[in-house]
Amino acid sequence: MSMINRQLRLMHRPEGLVRREDFELVRQPVSELGDGEILVRVLYISMDPTNRVWMRDIPQYMPPVAIGEVMRAGGIGRVVESRSAQFNEGELVQGFVGWQDYFVFHESAADTYVRLPADPGMPLPRLLGACGTSGVTAYYGLTDIAPVAAGETLVVSAAAGSVGSIAGQIGKIMGARVIGIAGGVDKCRYLVNELGFDAAVDYKTKDWKKSLQDATPNGVHVNFENVGGEIMKAVLSRMVLYGRVALCGLISGYNGDTKPGDDFSVIVIKRLAVRGFLVFDYRKTKQAVAALSGWIREGKIKAEETVVDGLENAPLVLNRLFDGSHKGKLVLRVEPEA
Amino acid sequence: MSMINRQLRLMHRPEGLVRREDFELVRQPVSELGDGEILVRVLYISMDPTNRVWMRDIPQYMPPVAIGEVMRAGGIGRVVESRSAQFNEGELVQGFVGWQDYFVFHESAADTYVRLPADPGMPLPRLLGACGTSGVTAYYGLTDIAPVAAGETLVVSAAAGSVGSIAGQIGKIMGARVIGIAGGVDKCRYLVNELGFDAAVDYKTKDWKKSLQDATPNGVHVNFENVGGEIMKAVLSRMVLYGRVALCGLISGYNGDTKPGDDFSVIVIKRLAVRGFLVFDYRKTKQAVAALSGWIREGKIKAEETVVDGLENAPLVLNRLFDGSHKGKLVLRVEPEA
Repeated sequence: MSMINRQLRLMHRPEGLVRREDFELVRQPVSELGDGEILVRVLYISMDPTNRVWMRDIPQYMPPVAIGEVMRAGGIGRVVESRSAQFNEGELVQGFVGWQDYFVFHESAADTYVRLPADPGMPLPRLLGACGTSGVTAYYGLTDIAPVAAGETLVVSAAAGSVGSIAGQIGKIMGARVIGIAGGVDKCRYLVNELGFDAAVDYKTKDWKKSLQDATPNGVHVNFENVGGEIMKAVLSRMVLYGRVALCGLISGYNGDTKPGDDFSVIVIKRLAVRGFLVFDYRKTKQAVAALSGWIREGKIKAEETVVDGLENAPLVLNRLFDGSHKGKLVLRVEPEA
Repeated sequence: MSMINRQLRLMHRPEGLVRREDFELVRQPVSELGDGEILVRVLYISMDPTNRVWMRDIPQYMPPVAIGEVMRAGGIGRVVESRSAQFNEGELVQGFVGWQDYFVFHESAADTYVRLPADPGMPLPRLLGACGTSGVTAYYGLTDIAPVAAGETLVVSAAAGSVGSIAGQIGKIMGARVIGIAGGVDKCRYLVNELGFDAAVDYKTKDWKKSLQDATPNGVHVNFENVGGEIMKAVLSRMVLYGRVALCGLISGYNGDTKPGDDFSVIVIKRLAVRGFLVFDYRKTKQAVAALSGWIREGKIKAEETVVDGLENAPLVLNRLFDGSHKGKLVLRVEPEA
């Protein structure tokens, strides 16, 4: 077999943007297949922001790519040789292909690859985009994670990107008012004129926060967030009470030179649900006090109060909440002067 | 009328812990009541971490206390004079009383005060603690916001405080394994020996993060979070996939000298629901691709792909995801060398 496989192997963990020298291009002959192995020629490689995170040695949802390893990437390939009864020459497969010309997988790992129909009915790159992980991400973000209803305002960041452009269009299908945040006049025009967004905010202009404010007069009900950092902060400041955030990505921090979004990244990695709340929202219900009183009566809850005397002491007593010098509820007893 | 009302008025916005000089103690006679007005003598004032936030001129869920204004605070008082048919002398009321001996409210604002029974059946301070806002907060945090199930692990921060101590005990009632984080040996013993927590982590010890790890061998399913900052960060790092966080408070940032929790504070203030997600979790479903393909066919979604040639260009092409120089899906086309 005389086929040569080129592989891009990670040599250094990039700092900031990726440099060509962070990878080594290695040429080596494709080796003979063993029993049950399938050889695939890579046709298309998906370029995803998350690839940049895989290059970093930080906690994430998959192990980072090791130094010396072929760069991990999703993509589509065609079977060029098969020693498995499960795959035939000529079939299209989708899954992790890596930054290389060819790869080999064993039939025991078959379920990590999706077999595509001989005629998928659309250009193959679309199976990586609008009808692939990008589109599917947008779809579940707005139907399962942070459903958006007709009449609500949806803000999408990185709105001209693969996920954002679909998320915004799904928002329109759902009947929402959709605002996209993108960089540059061209992209903003594209969002409004070609994709049907209601408005676009160009974050490269000086007064973009003001534009965001103007574009969301009734606040933001749902934020489909791809960027994090300053952009997310600005959108969150426009949220209505009880707003929902689908935290999809935090690309402002992916190149590692800045730290915005770091606090939020664990929410994505672990798919957490974080909900803020205030007791005032439960003002009208009696259920809690009834349950709590019952548990105290039954001895299942011990209630402790620390009572301190003297209105004049209020300012310094308050500090005790933060120095940890009391247990349970801290209460001030007031006796008017005679 | 010869009663003297002492009031603590905010004179300076405190930096760090509160100083006595940040407030002025003003004495003035209680004025005559007008028609429909009720005079209340303050008996107990609730000391709450959120009071410290009200002193700061930052965005929050209520307006900050203005300079010169009586400090806002919850509490319990007794009606000492009434010119309203709705309230009688001697009745107990609960609501915003302020840092003062007496206050007057008009019957038109009656719904902002809760009338208490003549005999509440428990010490009055408890109506501010375990059977008041603190207990109610704990209750809804663990039944509505981030429900905890039997067998799961719950971590509560500021666990010896008014909210945390009840939250932990509710967790036990629900059948969860409960870990409390508190400062000092005394409090940690209190949590385990008196309140029945399964374990306590003393954040004042050097190796508290290790202790937290040891106490949560199966990870953390629910975090009832009162502190924020480093403590929250450590707990989040122990969360299981799809874990839930009830974000109740972020007291590590309330004194304003540090900024931890700032990113998260908007989640509390606006009661947001923030959910992280990854497309891999939806691997098995076909629904999204079917819907997306349909919308594309019907012209409701425009799909755009930017296809670039050359495996060897992968590292630099990836940077285009971050410099904003493309629209839609970015895909690399691979042609093996001849």
